[in-house]
Amino acid sequence: MTTAHRFASSVHRDRLARAGAEASERGVDVLLITPSPDYAYLLGYRAPALERLTCLIVPADGEPALVLPRLEEPLARHELDDLQVALVPWDETDDPIRLVQAIVAGARRVAVQDQMWARFALRLRAALDPAELVEAGPTMSALRRIKSPEEIERLRAAGSAADSAMTSVIGERLSGRTEADLSRHIRDLLLEAGHDDAGFAIVASGPNSASPHHEAGERVIETGDAIVLDIGGTRAGYSSDTSRTAFVGDPEPEFAALHAVLREAQTAACEAVQPGVPCSEIDAVARGIINEAGYGDAFIHRTGHGIGMETHEDPYIVASNPELLREGHAFSVEPGIYMRDRWGARIEDIVVCTDAGGERLNTTSTELYVVE
Amino acid sequence: MTTAHRFASSVHRDRLARAGAEASERGVDVLLITPSPDYAYLLGYRAPALERLTCLIVPADGEPALVLPRLEEPLARHELDDLQVALVPWDETDDPIRLVQAIVAGARRVAVQDQMWARFALRLRAALDPAELVEAGPTMSALRRIKSPEEIERLRAAGSAADSAMTSVIGERLSGRTEADLSRHIRDLLLEAGHDDAGFAIVASGPNSASPHHEAGERVIETGDAIVLDIGGTRAGYSSDTSRTAFVGDPEPEFAALHAVLREAQTAACEAVQPGVPCSEIDAVARGIINEAGYGDAFIHRTGHGIGMETHEDPYIVASNPELLREGHAFSVEPGIYMRDRWGARIEDIVVCTDAGGERLNTTSTELYVVE
Repeated sequence: MTTAHRFASSVHRDRLARAGAEASERGVDVLLITPSPDYAYLLGYRAPALERLTCLIVPADGEPALVLPRLEEPLARHELDDLQVALVPWDETDDPIRLVQAIVAGARRVAVQDQMWARFALRLRAALDPAELVEAGPTMSALRRIKSPEEIERLRAAGSAADSAMTSVIGERLSGRTEADLSRHIRDLLLEAGHDDAGFAIVASGPNSASPHHEAGERVIETGDAIVLDIGGTRAGYSSDTSRTAFVGDPEPEFAALHAVLREAQTAACEAVQPGVPCSEIDAVARGIINEAGYGDAFIHRTGHGIGMETHEDPYIVASNPELLREGHAFSVEPGIYMRDRWGARIEDIVVCTDAGGERLNTTSTELYVVE
Repeated sequence: MTTAHRFASSVHRDRLARAGAEASERGVDVLLITPSPDYAYLLGYRAPALERLTCLIVPADGEPALVLPRLEEPLARHELDDLQVALVPWDETDDPIRLVQAIVAGARRVAVQDQMWARFALRLRAALDPAELVEAGPTMSALRRIKSPEEIERLRAAGSAADSAMTSVIGERLSGRTEADLSRHIRDLLLEAGHDDAGFAIVASGPNSASPHHEAGERVIETGDAIVLDIGGTRAGYSSDTSRTAFVGDPEPEFAALHAVLREAQTAACEAVQPGVPCSEIDAVARGIINEAGYGDAFIHRTGHGIGMETHEDPYIVASNPELLREGHAFSVEPGIYMRDRWGARIEDIVVCTDAGGERLNTTSTELYVVE
């Protein structure tokens, strides 16, 4: 299962080498990468992120090593195959922090993986004193934020699978079902469509549609409801994420008008994508249209987030991000309008920045769907 | 869905108060709890642990506050209901670290949740300087390691559900199926049996059974294989985790002998459970029997782990843990014997320490199952 997610060994060897080089350029002596998407990106398999320390050590200069619990050694040995990574297993009564300390002795700037457990980071900091602990995020993101053509193919396949699930569910009768039932059904559809993991299926109906991250509950969907569906998962290690809005029965004109503004904003933001445009500008395009229509206070989140091995990663499409778009950036464009206690709407596509502009990986219509 | 996991509001109010008191006793001025099992334990709902900082602030003395992204506010408002927690939402272009800093100003010892992202811990450390950052684990574990009767009921229900899935799969024909197919099928069975989430289904067949955390793959199960099944999930917020070993066709005598030793060790360790016995002693009981039979080097992991809202939590049943068992401790007893490249076996039950000794929450036979 994990093996199917790996690229050729040469890709992972290259990534390890580039990680070291990138660290070096940033004045980082060594990267400490615990199980996470960064770990999977480098090594090609997902190790469990649990209470036993597993830590990939990538020096700016030298060979990588992997400190890991002895019981994880057989899996690692199998998965790492011909990658040149020295395995350093520890037994249940060993202190793995000491093993890491011995390997990185002398390093002055040590970068720790962004999602490393604070427990480990605090212990490493004490053990490695006086080394400075810094975030590995910028180094890893420099590698991961530009997707290779084969990564974009995987994002495209994941996007198609999500579209297929969305098309199915939008064609069904939704009234009379609970949000939770519908959410479970969508997860099944995501798996049937080819996802390995049905990550999430937000079903926010009626007043719940005004809560962007509503958790599907026991509310029964009924005529007159707006429904936000925000669904996705992972396929071959890469994420999908798409949102559409539906209305049960004839849409109230006020809601249809709100949705029309949202759709115009989402379309314009997608069309503004091209290399050299700041991320903040994509946000400004969507926000400008929504502000102008008088819904500014109801658009309570950023316009989007990068996507890849994580559903949320760099680059973020937010007013505070001046970063310029580049070919190979992949991110969501998902403005929303939320009127508390009443209703809400969101439209979301994954877009890849190409030399010819933005390419949408989601291809279902962004219209307001009228459902039963 | 999450709401069903919550206990009465009075339970969560009490937990918040006890967390503050426990922190105070440990010389901690304030707890910073990001989304995690600790967060769910205190507040009764699971918030997404993502790149936007959500942070519950529990002072040793004073009212709790919750710093959270504005888009998570509607969900939190709904879930927190009548818990007295002040909501401090931040907008997309705010710096949430500054908000936390303002609230905890003056604190000298600040404890951060064990699984907090290192990214946040490093930023908080810089912002809160010269405050000392310490691990919140000991404080939270002091609360969580003793299960209440209603928590044990949930563990029991989760255990029964896992037993039901195990009984089903052990009764099926396993040869001719891939590990991955069987693993997917077991996940379905876990859900059908009442789990909300089918966490894991290790299917390790033939030589793969010698890898304790083998990831189910494309290997086809065949006659003559040993198979380790290690399955579990969560039900109403609490975890199940059970392992059984099967053999396809008539067991080879050598394997049957190995399994008999393992079963004796597992039974003896379960029977050794009672209040006042050190965790290390439970490990020693299992390990002693396995050592004596000459398999000592093949038992490459600790005997068990605590279980509750997390599949792995305190107390750990390991040689290095002198902690004395107490009523309300719940943990796995799961010795294993692994002969690299050949075969392996593991037997695992969840056991609760009661005043009358250990009570197994898994009740399927621990025999070596002979399957087709």
